[in-house]
Parts: sequence; C-alpha cells; structure tokens
Amino acid sequence: MSRFVVIGERIHCISPVIRKAMDAMDPEPILKRAKEQIAAGAGYIDVNIGPAESNGPELMKWAVQLIQGECDNIPLALDTANMAAIEAGMTVYNDVNGKALVNSADAGDRKPYLDLAANVGAACICLCSNGSVPGSLDEITGYCMELLEHGLGLGMEAEDMWMDPLFLVCKGQQDKQGQILDAISFFKENGLNSSGGLSNVSNGAPKELRTHLDCAMLAMSMSRGLTSVIMNPNDTAMMNTVKTCDVLLDNYMYADSWLDL
Amino acid sequence: MSRFVVIGERIHCISPVIRKAMDAMDPEPILKRAKEQIAAGAGYIDVNIGPAESNGPELMKWAVQLIQGECDNIPLALDTANMAAIEAGMTVYNDVNGKALVNSADAGDRKPYLDLAANVGAACICLCSNGSVPGSLDEITGYCMELLEHGLGLGMEAEDMWMDPLFLVCKGQQDKQGQILDAISFFKENGLNSSGGLSNVSNGAPKELRTHLDCAMLAMSMSRGLTSVIMNPNDTAMMNTVKTCDVLLDNYMYADSWLDL
Repeated sequence: MSRFVVIGERIHCISPVIRKAMDAMDPEPILKRAKEQIAAGAGYIDVNIGPAESNGPELMKWAVQLIQGECDNIPLALDTANMAAIEAGMTVYNDVNGKALVNSADAGDRKPYLDLAANVGAACICLCSNGSVPGSLDEITGYCMELLEHGLGLGMEAEDMWMDPLFLVCKGQQDKQGQILDAISFFKENGLNSSGGLSNVSNGAPKELRTHLDCAMLAMSMSRGLTSVIMNPNDTAMMNTVKTCDVLLDNYMYADSWLDL
Repeated sequence: MSRFVVIGERIHCISPVIRKAMDAMDPEPILKRAKEQIAAGAGYIDVNIGPAESNGPELMKWAVQLIQGECDNIPLALDTANMAAIEAGMTVYNDVNGKALVNSADAGDRKPYLDLAANVGAACICLCSNGSVPGSLDEITGYCMELLEHGLGLGMEAEDMWMDPLFLVCKGQQDKQGQILDAISFFKENGLNSSGGLSNVSNGAPKELRTHLDCAMLAMSMSRGLTSVIMNPNDTAMMNTVKTCDVLLDNYMYADSWLDL
C-alpha cells in the first residue's frame, strides 16, 4: 500500500492574502503557504487561480515555476476554469516527483478537462457528476465508468484518473453521506484512485464542532479506500486523522512517534 | 438504520473499586458507574464479574437486580467464565428494554456459551476465533459462519449473534487491522450485527496518543458497518466519534447539538 495523498488547499484565490499576492505576482505569501503545507505533510499543492480570465496563462506559469522551483518540484494540482492557463502551466511543470493533477473534470460541461489532461500528460481529478448533485449511487458509478472509459480512450492510465465522489454538506444532505462512502467503496473495488474536497461535509455546522464531522468523515472515507483528499494540511486534527488511519491501514510502519512522521 | 450500540465496559472486576464492591456486595460504586455510563449514552452495561468461582450465581443475580432495578431495566451484557452465574443472572433478568447479551462465545472452547444463550433466551457476542488470533480473513469468516450455523441450529435468530472480529493491538499487529475491517464488511454484507472490545487497538501506544488510534479505528469500523462496540462511554472523544459517525451514517437526525444528544 502507498501512503494517503494530502492535496493542500491553501493556495486559493478566494483567500484575500493569496488573491493579493497573485494580483501583484508577489512570491512570498504564496511560498509561505506552500512551505507550511509541505512541512505539515502535503504531498501535492493545489494552485487555484480562479477563472483568471485576463492573465491566466501567465499567472499559472509563474506560480508553477515559483512553487516547484522553491519547493523541490513538489507535485501540483492546477486548479482553474481557464484551460489555457493549465496548458501554459504544464509547459513549465516538472513531473520528476509526480504527475500534475488537473483539477478538475466532470461528466458534464467539464469533460474537456479530461481531454486536456490527456493532451498534456497530467493526471486528472474526475468529479463523478454531470454538474448537479448525483441522486443515487448508480448515478455516481455511472459517471465514474463514463469518465474512465473516456480517459482510457484518450490513452490515459486508469490510475491517473482520481475519482471524486463529490463530498456534500452533512447538514442538509445527511442522507447522501452513506452514498458517498459507498461510491468510495466502488472506486476501491475497481482499483481506482480517488480524491475530493472533504471539508465541506461540515459546512454550516457550529464552527467549534466542524472538526468532529471533518475528522470522522475522513476516517470513514479512508476506511472505504479513499486514496487522497483535498484539505488544509495545517489543520492538526485532520492531519492526525490521516496519519493514524494510514498506520491502521498499514500504509506506513507504526512507531510511537507516528504523528510526527 | 438504528443507532450504534455502546456497551459500557466500566463495571469490570479488574477495577479495584468494582472488585471491592463486588466482594462486599456494596451497591453504591456499581450503581455510580452504571449511571455514569448510561448518562453518557451507553445502551448496554457490561457486568464483568470475572471467573467468580465461589459465588458467581449469587453475585450475578445480585448485580442484575441491582442495576436493572435502579436503572430502568437497562439491557445488560453478562460477562463471566462462570456459566452457572449467567444462568442465575438470567432468572432475574428483565428484557423489556432489550435482550441480555452473553459475553462471550467463540468457535473454540467457548462454543457452549452459544448453547447457553439459546437456552436462556439471550443474545450472544460471538468471537470469530477458536481461541487464538485468526491468521486470515478466511479464518474469521469461517468461524463466523460456523457460529452462525450453530446458533441457527439452536433456534436463535441471526440478529441475536453479534459477531466479534477480535480487535487487536496496532503496535505489533499492525498488518492485521485491515483484515479486521474486512471482517466487519463481511458481517455487514451478510446483515449481521457485530461488536467487540475496540480500545485494545491502542495498547502499548503512548498514553496521551491512544485516543487517536481508538477514535480512528472506531470511525473506520463504523464506516464498514460495525453495529456495536464495548468501550468506555465516559471517554468523551470516543463517544463524540460514535455520535458523529452515527449522524454521518444517517442513524439519527443531524442537529447542531448532535454531540449532546
């Protein structure tokens, strides 16, 4: 077994600090967050530049070179609705430590992102949805197979399509949580990698209690075979959950200091 | 779905306070622990009187009447190697709030405990082991089917045999944790109830870190379909994990105050 992959979510243009740094192409705030996430155990860094309609290609190229250049070519997830920006970022991407991830394709309007990933030699997060909330497990597994078939037809390896079950908020979508876990079991049974933005499970819950929902859903998802997650690696409770589940799943060797490794 | 069942483990003759109370038939320390566990959310109270070779029947009868009498006939797990004590306890057991649990049978020398449970109309925890640590998932599922067949032959309902995968210490048996989770999946796929003493997963780990292993294994086990656990309900982190997983599994309705319910 290989270790669970944490994709650090903190370089995101929705953060005012990051937004400002991206606007000014100021390296320091971005490198700071990249390094904090890597130090905490992130295996990938997500780079979300938003729609970036005006300067997307230039901005993504700059960010890729900046972060990989200063952080030992850490693998990146290129996260934007601007496909030209992903293409530009890939012209300077160094995959010595892992393929880039395109974040993300779906089985609806965002299917071309899978074609893009195939064209540029990247892996791809594949949201098992057509853009709306899947109504049933059959719907999720149907989109999974549709995306898998499409990617294989493009010459991609199955392992490079990281299936996303679409984590949903518990408060309001409580009856869907079991379906999400069952989707992860389906991915696992079919030998597929998986990922997703898990922490929205706790949206709307009292702030001080969110960690309970996040950590429980994370452990439950890892138990079903989730292989990666998009989260804040500097959330100690979440990161401890990742490390502890990884030990219990025998993904790396137990030591009394397992939380520090 | 029904709520996960916590079997409170704190009335155990290995505790000096309880040992002394049992020796003297002093009700207060026993009632105190029973009430603390029920207040925290225990659905069953385990009554472990040890081998109780001299006065087992008398002691168990006393304990059953004491706890049920003062605690609204809370269901009990009768936990002793003295079969006559279980029989005696059952003569005064009130099952208005749930069948008694015999704790426990196995597929080795303790198979007669299943016969005993059938004879006295109790449910039974069935350890899927012949007395030694199972070497493989096939061994666990084999013992499960053997115990199930035996109990059905005695006229028991399948739902009254709570299958125990035998939780093992992570430090030293790390490679067996996945097998335990897979055994729980097998129980779930076959519609069986399950239980077990989970907290030994963290034996030998640094004391302040044990809760991480216990809570993660609990959430991972609930994700696979475990329906009950034997634990300390007054361990807040563990109980919060039970409640949060129960909400995520839609076993009871989400409310912002779910940890207080």
